[in-house]
Amino acid sequence: MALSEFEIIKQYFTRSTKQPGCELGVGDDCALLTVEPGMQMAVTIDTLVENVHFFTDVDAQALGYKSLAVSLSDLSAMGAEPRYATLALTLPEVNALWLQGFSDGFFELADQYHLDLIGGDITRGPLSITIQAHGVVPDGQALLRSGAGIGDLIYVTGVIGDAGLALKSCRGDVQCCDPLMLNRLHKPEPRVEAGLVLRNLASACVDISDGLAADLSHVLQASKVGAVVNADELPLSEAVQSYQQRNSQPDFALTAGEDYELCFTVPEKNVKQLEISSRNWSYPCTCIGRIDNSGQLSFLKNGQRIEITGNSYQHFS
Amino acid sequence: MALSEFEIIKQYFTRSTKQPGCELGVGDDCALLTVEPGMQMAVTIDTLVENVHFFTDVDAQALGYKSLAVSLSDLSAMGAEPRYATLALTLPEVNALWLQGFSDGFFELADQYHLDLIGGDITRGPLSITIQAHGVVPDGQALLRSGAGIGDLIYVTGVIGDAGLALKSCRGDVQCCDPLMLNRLHKPEPRVEAGLVLRNLASACVDISDGLAADLSHVLQASKVGAVVNADELPLSEAVQSYQQRNSQPDFALTAGEDYELCFTVPEKNVKQLEISSRNWSYPCTCIGRIDNSGQLSFLKNGQRIEITGNSYQHFS
Repeated sequence: MALSEFEIIKQYFTRSTKQPGCELGVGDDCALLTVEPGMQMAVTIDTLVENVHFFTDVDAQALGYKSLAVSLSDLSAMGAEPRYATLALTLPEVNALWLQGFSDGFFELADQYHLDLIGGDITRGPLSITIQAHGVVPDGQALLRSGAGIGDLIYVTGVIGDAGLALKSCRGDVQCCDPLMLNRLHKPEPRVEAGLVLRNLASACVDISDGLAADLSHVLQASKVGAVVNADELPLSEAVQSYQQRNSQPDFALTAGEDYELCFTVPEKNVKQLEISSRNWSYPCTCIGRIDNSGQLSFLKNGQRIEITGNSYQHFS
Repeated sequence: MALSEFEIIKQYFTRSTKQPGCELGVGDDCALLTVEPGMQMAVTIDTLVENVHFFTDVDAQALGYKSLAVSLSDLSAMGAEPRYATLALTLPEVNALWLQGFSDGFFELADQYHLDLIGGDITRGPLSITIQAHGVVPDGQALLRSGAGIGDLIYVTGVIGDAGLALKSCRGDVQCCDPLMLNRLHKPEPRVEAGLVLRNLASACVDISDGLAADLSHVLQASKVGAVVNADELPLSEAVQSYQQRNSQPDFALTAGEDYELCFTVPEKNVKQLEISSRNWSYPCTCIGRIDNSGQLSFLKNGQRIEITGNSYQHFS
């Protein structure tokens, strides 16, 4: 089967658009978007490369889902509502089964948020996926990294470290963990609803892709503040707790990447409302520390300061 | 030298933003854009892959320039004014000299149009470049492929076939041509000014990336019309004319890709104004045919119909 790029687009990636404001989607030189007055457009672009971000034998459907999830996680961290995506797909060959799986996974998540695929590019080459996601947020309500204030409380959604442990399992470094744990790596759920609620409550927000310690550091740098995180309060699964103990690695969850949870700061005055609002979320919302004026990020365990030894993932380092 | 992705972004890809409407650029989870009322945003994403879209030994500066030029050409074909770009760069290694060259080339073109780089992603893997360009166009004035009407005249900017001939020269298929000709392949000039003027004059427009015959076909399909193109009227350089004669390949320029010229249709009533407006362009504007109701695309040479034998570039075909 030798489908051309146009046939691939038509067969696997053309759907009717559902979002308001999309005047023109797939099929012309550009897509055309209208942003309603009073709203800003938030845009984010991410690439996943074979053998760097995913294994060659990863399930195509999970990959299609995750490729979009990574971008929606960035939108969530800004408090933006997902609207549109573009997809640049580089394929070594045309494999109909793979394309159907990838497309199914992509649209599984897209449909959940009524997100439209409005354009893209299909090229030949080593497998990689680049997605730009576009969301909207009311003027002035976007959650920036730079807004954390001294005294604000630090929260995290969900549990952290599971994806990192699942990655170790895929690499054969630890015994294979259960399918639910693998799902945390392969099909992360972007915290879109939390991001929307946090628009009015959080002072700063970031999504955890490189590891909690590294990503929270970005917030501290942008906000020119410090913080103390109580490692005893970290929301961890039993599997991660057990792994940390067995390996005397108390900071594993702090440096493991790919969680795609949100880490955010909340001024004291909004804490009550956060507690009420977060009750509707299907995942935990846990206070793990506090912003201070120390200019650095410290971690406490049993009241003692611990050093971070693990390295969060960095390309080229 | 082992720069991290953050250091690469800071050193080579962070500039102050110049465009109105960019509230937040490089450095957060998303960039934030405001589109003024009455304007639509046009977006287009394209990937260039090593050994598919460019040779390994291509000059980094030319590559940085061309990667953006390809996207600006798409904006031009919609009549959109360039505003912002995002860049997803996948690199096999950190090479400071290469990065400086690529960045210089990218910003050489970006600065020409006061375009801001507002975000991106740097990943490790086989060299490839994905750029999404964002432009604006007043509501309802975008040039679509679907607007060509029967009787409209067909025009093309610049000359065609030069990039295709230069590509043959790079491959060693023909004798090395002069540097100006190579520039037509390596540093195509997007026809931004023409696109802006054509908003009010053209009924349909496309940029020539796959070859005039293939790209004009897209317009005919979208507009549900046919056309006759007079191959004797095609604007060709002496080098391309000579190549076509030597090789008895009268359709070479029609099927050669990478021209990044605009092909557009103009209703008879706007022809006079087009002639006046196009006098200010630094490249020719040539009438090459007419839209008809035949439902097909025909080419005439010396009054005789010719068949197109060359194939325009298609991935996977």
